[in-house]
Amino acid sequence: MPLPPHALAWLSQRVGLGEPFAEVPVSAPASALSADAFTALEAVCSVSVDAPDRLGRAGGFSYLDLLRRRGHGTLAVPDAVVSPSSHDEVAEVLRVCVEYDVAVVPFGGGTSVVGGVEALRGSKSAVVALDLAGVNRLVSVDPVSRVAVLQAGLTGPEAEKLLREHGFTLGHVPQSFERATIGGFAATRSAGQASSGYGRFEDMVESVRVATPVGSWVVGTAPASAAGPDLKQLVLGSEGLFGVITEVSVRVRPVPVSPRYEGFVVDGWESGVALVRDLAQAGAPADVTRLSDVDETEVALALAGGKAEVVKKYLRVRRVAAPCLVILGWECRDRLATLKVLRRHKVVRLGRAMGESWLHGRFNGPRQRDALLDAGVCVETLETATRWSSVSELRDAVRQALVAELGNPVVMCHVSHAYETGASLYFTVLVPRDLADPVAQWEKAKIAASDAISRLGTITHHHAVGRDHLPWLEKEIGGVGVSVLRAVKNDLDPTGILNPGKLV
Amino acid sequence: MPLPPHALAWLSQRVGLGEPFAEVPVSAPASALSADAFTALEAVCSVSVDAPDRLGRAGGFSYLDLLRRRGHGTLAVPDAVVSPSSHDEVAEVLRVCVEYDVAVVPFGGGTSVVGGVEALRGSKSAVVALDLAGVNRLVSVDPVSRVAVLQAGLTGPEAEKLLREHGFTLGHVPQSFERATIGGFAATRSAGQASSGYGRFEDMVESVRVATPVGSWVVGTAPASAAGPDLKQLVLGSEGLFGVITEVSVRVRPVPVSPRYEGFVVDGWESGVALVRDLAQAGAPADVTRLSDVDETEVALALAGGKAEVVKKYLRVRRVAAPCLVILGWECRDRLATLKVLRRHKVVRLGRAMGESWLHGRFNGPRQRDALLDAGVCVETLETATRWSSVSELRDAVRQALVAELGNPVVMCHVSHAYETGASLYFTVLVPRDLADPVAQWEKAKIAASDAISRLGTITHHHAVGRDHLPWLEKEIGGVGVSVLRAVKNDLDPTGILNPGKLV
Repeated sequence: MPLPPHALAWLSQRVGLGEPFAEVPVSAPASALSADAFTALEAVCSVSVDAPDRLGRAGGFSYLDLLRRRGHGTLAVPDAVVSPSSHDEVAEVLRVCVEYDVAVVPFGGGTSVVGGVEALRGSKSAVVALDLAGVNRLVSVDPVSRVAVLQAGLTGPEAEKLLREHGFTLGHVPQSFERATIGGFAATRSAGQASSGYGRFEDMVESVRVATPVGSWVVGTAPASAAGPDLKQLVLGSEGLFGVITEVSVRVRPVPVSPRYEGFVVDGWESGVALVRDLAQAGAPADVTRLSDVDETEVALALAGGKAEVVKKYLRVRRVAAPCLVILGWECRDRLATLKVLRRHKVVRLGRAMGESWLHGRFNGPRQRDALLDAGVCVETLETATRWSSVSELRDAVRQALVAELGNPVVMCHVSHAYETGASLYFTVLVPRDLADPVAQWEKAKIAASDAISRLGTITHHHAVGRDHLPWLEKEIGGVGVSVLRAVKNDLDPTGILNPGKLV
Repeated sequence: MPLPPHALAWLSQRVGLGEPFAEVPVSAPASALSADAFTALEAVCSVSVDAPDRLGRAGGFSYLDLLRRRGHGTLAVPDAVVSPSSHDEVAEVLRVCVEYDVAVVPFGGGTSVVGGVEALRGSKSAVVALDLAGVNRLVSVDPVSRVAVLQAGLTGPEAEKLLREHGFTLGHVPQSFERATIGGFAATRSAGQASSGYGRFEDMVESVRVATPVGSWVVGTAPASAAGPDLKQLVLGSEGLFGVITEVSVRVRPVPVSPRYEGFVVDGWESGVALVRDLAQAGAPADVTRLSDVDETEVALALAGGKAEVVKKYLRVRRVAAPCLVILGWECRDRLATLKVLRRHKVVRLGRAMGESWLHGRFNGPRQRDALLDAGVCVETLETATRWSSVSELRDAVRQALVAELGNPVVMCHVSHAYETGASLYFTVLVPRDLADPVAQWEKAKIAASDAISRLGTITHHHAVGRDHLPWLEKEIGGVGVSVLRAVKNDLDPTGILNPGKLV
């Protein structure tokens, strides 16, 4: 998706444009998959060693992934793409891969921004991408219990289309929605933009079906249980390390009758945090509850083009010194309950146009990344969550770390997932690309920012660990936690074929 | 707590009274703890081998436990009671027990009804009860984030008292509330009577501190995270098998300003289920949302004594053929939202007196069990959860199983925890005690009922697995799940000192 002229003009003035990227075509190395393994896999399902297929499953969508596709850094290309179309075929693929000692990277939409689908071989001689696109049925709908069984390869839009035929929706719309899959949502503990109303993906999951190298496993039986530890929570977030998720049983809700999105402005970040905290703690958030800081609000208004001038003028009249945009969207939650809490705060109402504008632009971020790269801009995001009492300290620490490493970046921040005890923080960074070594430019910044994040919050609220967050995992879960993950990994995948180099 | 005369009269007529129990005094066998182990433990903290202390930690409060205390069956008595007063002392106790190969049963309130605190030795020569009563501080309160750190040995009332000094409450009131502890709530995935509003205990937990034989572990950092699997959920429900929970960081809420409890009646079980389901799926349950079936309602009214006659007459006037009592209690949730949904259903309002009556009698069940035993009555409870579409089938199946095994029992059932996708079912059984073999009488009934439960729901919604539900665990979590539990157990407790014979 190209950038409109006014956005380019703003970028040039505020961020500075770098040297445009030349496309360096990346080629796939010869496949290292043995003929025997290929034949055995082909007996199960379709297998391709064609370069376009393999390049199409080489990594995800982090800034570093995009750089690799443009010739900076090394792109890990799978030796083959294996495409099963059922749980049983997935299980059989794993059996063959154990037999031939081939590494397997489960591949859904390929939208990981943390290196989660990098085709690393580990100690194996070959690695295949296990593409779940063919495992894509709506298995069943229980309208009384409002539970649907969805297969892992369904993308967000595909799942919604199938559910809507029954009058239901998942309500799970992360920014990766257009490409990401049900299996990926489960494997990475995804959180959608309306998570304040619908919950995180793991909150929707009743049970999971997994193919592991030691056998198939259905985990989760009832809405809630005290039958020992919740093992389902071990599969959710397992990032393809313990098995391949093939089906997920999820809570669904009726399609909202009259969703409504509105824009508001508060004066200053702290006022905004107080507002969102009050909403969450009063049990009255909108389904979509987002707060942008001053910098993100400035960018949002700048990129909105001409119509934003009216808003800016109105905010001057209302004497809002440091405008912070608040987007509230009601799909299933009670709007009046939210408005009741809003009355306790100084809030300027911008109306539905601003809410609709957010709604229609909600996927622009990922869509415009290539255009930003073309313009010589380094663009990446970071995210975390922490307690309310640490939200502002954490935001400051990350900004400082990024400024220290990147010179004069634009750093924008928003809260997009509010809980009673805390919130997520999501950062977007824009800076002219370092011409000499764009990879090192971002890696240094990522380390500094992640150190700050790790000090005060979780290393990731909804992007998962993959390869990129691995250095900070032990601090978060402890040496004992790492040991437990390894024990589970060894139990379920004793020969270590599954997604080497990630998480554990 | 004694039974009032009208309750005894009702029991005699409806259930039938058995032969009253004679108290058979149970004595403690000699302690098998070696002098070396005793000395090493005493260097850490207080240790007792006195018979009353040991008998006081011999098992929990299941019907079979009560029978054992009265001389039927074998009471497993710990060889000593070890009483640490801090996390470090707990960790040190575990180190000593590993060194001397002594089994450890973590002991909180001792309210397990599933054999969870039975002092089994496993393969060890001695077993100690690790009593957490001295690990009982409120460590910290973060009023902005509404998070408190509570130590494991605090009982429900103790924790509430400490939190209320800061204006907060946990809102977690299971029927075991008066004796049960924070650590026990966490170790067993407890669900309180107001769980429809406050959530289950695991929903409140942000992080857990555990002493394990391989080291201390703090798990959980933020309100939500995608940093791999949620390992906290592996500790919650681990029933003392993986380590000893010493501190729990929990979400708290302001003490409710004007809690309100009301009674309602619907005509017939199916109407009641439809009502509660609608409330849960509309996002409008009261904090306490309970539905009793016809049998439980009949008993509730019978036990209410004289004042119930007025209610019964009123229900006849309102032509309610099959009255099912509904108790709704609002503490932090919006009453008007609930009432809005109620208007869609045919509901007879009984007012606040009936709600207050439930509130004041909410702990009578456990309090009156000894009196029921004294009267020769076998009394026990069973519970499960399932999807809405299976709720009535499961209820019927359990009733049939109990009738088939017990002859003519009174079987009462209620829904006390409602979810969007399903609900809990809680059964209370009353039948005259079999004089010859009261243990076998209940064991047969428990197996038949549990088989029915296991076919259609979870083997336990909030009582945990312990020893009594072990035979049904593998069906629920699969062979792969059992293997994963064992792998984690071996990793954290390689010599197997912790709570032998339970869960795994």
